[in-house]
Order: sequence, then C-alpha cells, then structure tokens
Amino acid sequence: MNENKYPLVSDSRDPRFLTLRSLQTPQGRSRTGLYVIEGIRHVVRAIEHQAPIESVFLDPSVLSNPFGQKLARRLRKRGVPGIRLSRQLYRQLTLAAQPQGIGAIVRQQWIPLANIQVAPDSFWLAVESIESPGNLGTIIRTAEAAGVTGALVLSPDCDPYVPATVRATMGLLFSQKLIRCSPHEFTNWAKSNRVAVVASSPAGLMDYRALPYRFPAVLLIGSEKRGLSDQLLEAADFVVRIPMHGDCDSINAAVTSGVLLFEMASQRKGY
Amino acid sequence: MNENKYPLVSDSRDPRFLTLRSLQTPQGRSRTGLYVIEGIRHVVRAIEHQAPIESVFLDPSVLSNPFGQKLARRLRKRGVPGIRLSRQLYRQLTLAAQPQGIGAIVRQQWIPLANIQVAPDSFWLAVESIESPGNLGTIIRTAEAAGVTGALVLSPDCDPYVPATVRATMGLLFSQKLIRCSPHEFTNWAKSNRVAVVASSPAGLMDYRALPYRFPAVLLIGSEKRGLSDQLLEAADFVVRIPMHGDCDSINAAVTSGVLLFEMASQRKGY
Repeated sequence: MNENKYPLVSDSRDPRFLTLRSLQTPQGRSRTGLYVIEGIRHVVRAIEHQAPIESVFLDPSVLSNPFGQKLARRLRKRGVPGIRLSRQLYRQLTLAAQPQGIGAIVRQQWIPLANIQVAPDSFWLAVESIESPGNLGTIIRTAEAAGVTGALVLSPDCDPYVPATVRATMGLLFSQKLIRCSPHEFTNWAKSNRVAVVASSPAGLMDYRALPYRFPAVLLIGSEKRGLSDQLLEAADFVVRIPMHGDCDSINAAVTSGVLLFEMASQRKGY
Repeated sequence: MNENKYPLVSDSRDPRFLTLRSLQTPQGRSRTGLYVIEGIRHVVRAIEHQAPIESVFLDPSVLSNPFGQKLARRLRKRGVPGIRLSRQLYRQLTLAAQPQGIGAIVRQQWIPLANIQVAPDSFWLAVESIESPGNLGTIIRTAEAAGVTGALVLSPDCDPYVPATVRATMGLLFSQKLIRCSPHEFTNWAKSNRVAVVASSPAGLMDYRALPYRFPAVLLIGSEKRGLSDQLLEAADFVVRIPMHGDCDSINAAVTSGVLLFEMASQRKGY
C-alpha cells in the first residue's frame, strides 16, 4: 500500500503524536485553530466539502476497508502530509468502538459575523450553550439536515470541535457555516438584519405550531439544564414551546431542535 | 437520619450488592424481571407513578440534598426494604458523573399485547431495534412527551431497562405502557385493531408532512444503521420520510422519532 510510505510513529513522546493528543483538549484546539476527525465517513465528507485538511493519520493494521485504503492513497497523492500510528497510539485518538484506521487534522473554520449575508428566506440556528458534546453534535447534524444557512454559537464554552461533538455530527460539520459571537453581537445582528428571533423555552406561551414563522428567522436554543438566559429570552421576538403530554416538563435538546427546525423548514416550503 | 437504620453493606461479595450488580446485565434482568434506577428524579417519578419498587439503596455520604433525604425517610417509613452502600460500592451502580446517593430496584412492567385496548384516537410507537441505549431512552422520553399511548418493542435485544436507557428516559419510563412482541404479532395486532402502520424510512416516497394521518396509528422506527427490516416495511400502510437538505442522508433516530411523533400529535389535535 502506498500509505505505508508515511513515516511510522510508535513512541507516545513523538511530537507528531503529542500534537494529535493536544487537539483533544480545549487549550490545544484554541491555540492552533485545528481539530481532529476520525473515520472514513468523516474524512470523505471533509474532502467532498473541501475542508482544509492539514494532515492525515493512519493505522494500516485496522484500515482493512478497500475504500478507506483508496482514500488514504488519494490523500497521499494529493500531497497531504501524514503519519502512520501504531495500533496503541491510534486507539488513544478515537472514541469509536471499532476504529476505522484513518483520521485527519483539519483547520477550524469560523466565519466572522460581519461577513454573513442574510438572504430573505434564510433560517439559522443559534445555541446559547449546550452541555453535552453529543447533543451539540446531534443538533448541528439536525440543523444541516433541516437546511439552516448557518449556526451561531453564543458561548465560548460551547465547542463544535470537541471530539465527541465532531463524532455526533456524522460528518455534517464541514458543510455548516459556523459563527462565534457574543449574545450582545447576536441580538444586534438579528435586529440590523431583521432576523426574527424564535426562542425555544418550556415557559413559552405560544405553541410552536400556532406561530406563522416569518423569514429570515433564527431558532435560539438554550442549555439542557438551565434553558436560555433572561438576557436572550428578552431579546426574542417569539418564545415558543412544544406542548407536552402529562407531567413531562422537557425533551432532549437535540429532539427539541429537530421538532422546531423541521417545522420552520416546512413552513418555509409552504406546507 | 432515619435512613441510617438501613443495614450497611461495604463488602463487594455481599449477596445484596451482587444482586444489584447482576441487574446491570441482560441475564440478571431477564432472570429476575427487575431493574435498577438511580437518582432523585427517577425515584420520585417511580413513586408518583406507583412503579413497583422492591427495595432502595443509599449512599448517605453523598445524599446531601434535603429533598433526597426526605425521600429516603419516606420510603423507609412506607416499609420499603433497603441497604446503605459504601461510597465505593454505590459508585459501581451509577452512570452519573455526580451520583445523588439514592436508587432503587424496580420490577419491570410489561403489558401483554392481548390486554391492550386500542382507542380510536390513540397513537403508538413501535421500535424494531435500536442499537444505542441512550437513543432508546431518548425515544421513550420523547414518545411520552408527545402523548403516545404505549410503546411496542419488537426485538428481544432491545431492552428499555438497560441502565443507560433508563437514565436517558429522565424518569419517564414509569408512565409508559411497554409491550414486547414479535414483528409478526405486531402486524397481526395492527391489522385486527385497524391501527395505521406508519413506517419511517429515508427510502419512503412520502413527505411526512404531506400525509394526513388517520388514527389509531403507530409509528414504526428501525435501527440507526440498518433501518427497518423488509418484513416490517412491507407490512406498513405508509412509508414516510423526512425531507433532508443537501447531501444529508439521515438524522439521529431519536430526532426522527421526535419530528414524526410531534407531527402526528399535532394532526391529532387538529392543527
């Protein structure tokens, strides 16, 4: 296999391995602006969406899938730098129960809020803060499937590039426009672009189905435990709730996002 | 504290601890028909819904919440048997990052299919098989919030009483009617009770919003990886799909369930 020509790293003190390890930490990611993806699906999607792949890492001993092998050769031919890792070192870089033997370091892509064009029929997602990395990834995946134009992240603690979040996006991170801004910048942006802010809260007085959404619109989601801050609830044009049966008081944040985003997507299409 | 009167167990070979441990395994649960819940929220919900609590276990060293302490006293006064566990033993029984120091052994409640009454406006959930315990729990929680009458489990491998599933239901397991049956029994049940079987599949030809649902109805969900079996797809009256943007091919199974169940709930209410 051609990918055997990548140098082998089997010492856990090797700086190339240490770089990979450091990207599992918030500090390592923010210092470098990089993150790690793992698995054939993720690498394929990254290539399809021209995500800026900086380098590749392989474990040829588990890269048995012919398509995965072809992918590794293709990356090497394109001149992407890379290393081979011993099985033991590769294992430390993945959350997968059955690692696929191919991963990459990718450059984070944040779009400055000022560069964002707001089309009249566009719709957006904004997350104030989501505690569970898996939930955040599922929310990003759901938003992409529902057709949002981009996702605004309003808290510095909320990181779409955490390994468990990346994994839960199922490779849908690369096509999503990501914007980081403060709650204050967000409300200014919405106001000056006439974007209707739709906040989701169990305390909302409006059934989410009863509201005719106007576009452009942004759905605002708060943390699983605390919901949205008062500051953001007050800045909302509408506060909607999903009516729940019996004594249920909440549903999962990703499920909430799905129910609301697909309702908005449907209304936009005119159902 | 009164709950101190429960006997203390600190030896990991104590049969009372071994019973608790065994309920974390499929064999232990199926042999006894019991399962374990942990955390104040779960115990409160179990009491509210008169779930058959067999016994309680505490770790007084972390049960600092006054409401939790009151709960423990209440259970003891009601004559519920119990033990205190050392911190180390208790830790082995919970998935929580911050254990709350109170849990219980509860009897599983399966309702025989033959005992099920199908009201004309009722709607149901049926899962063929769900691989992720967390997803299954979130689906059960979502179904309860959407107001389904009950959940049918069509695979022997699909176990709502797995600890990670119980945890993800957020205490909404006790109010849900659970029925276990084979795919064959399910299709017979649907036919003889005139329940419309709505299958969810990315291969469905019908947009889920375009379908006027008739009731009684059951939403049929397949596995995250393989979807529904051909046998069940063929038995469906309608196969619906959630239209997805771009090159997305799927969304999370719990999000799918949420989008479809809340659409059905809305139509039932006449929105």
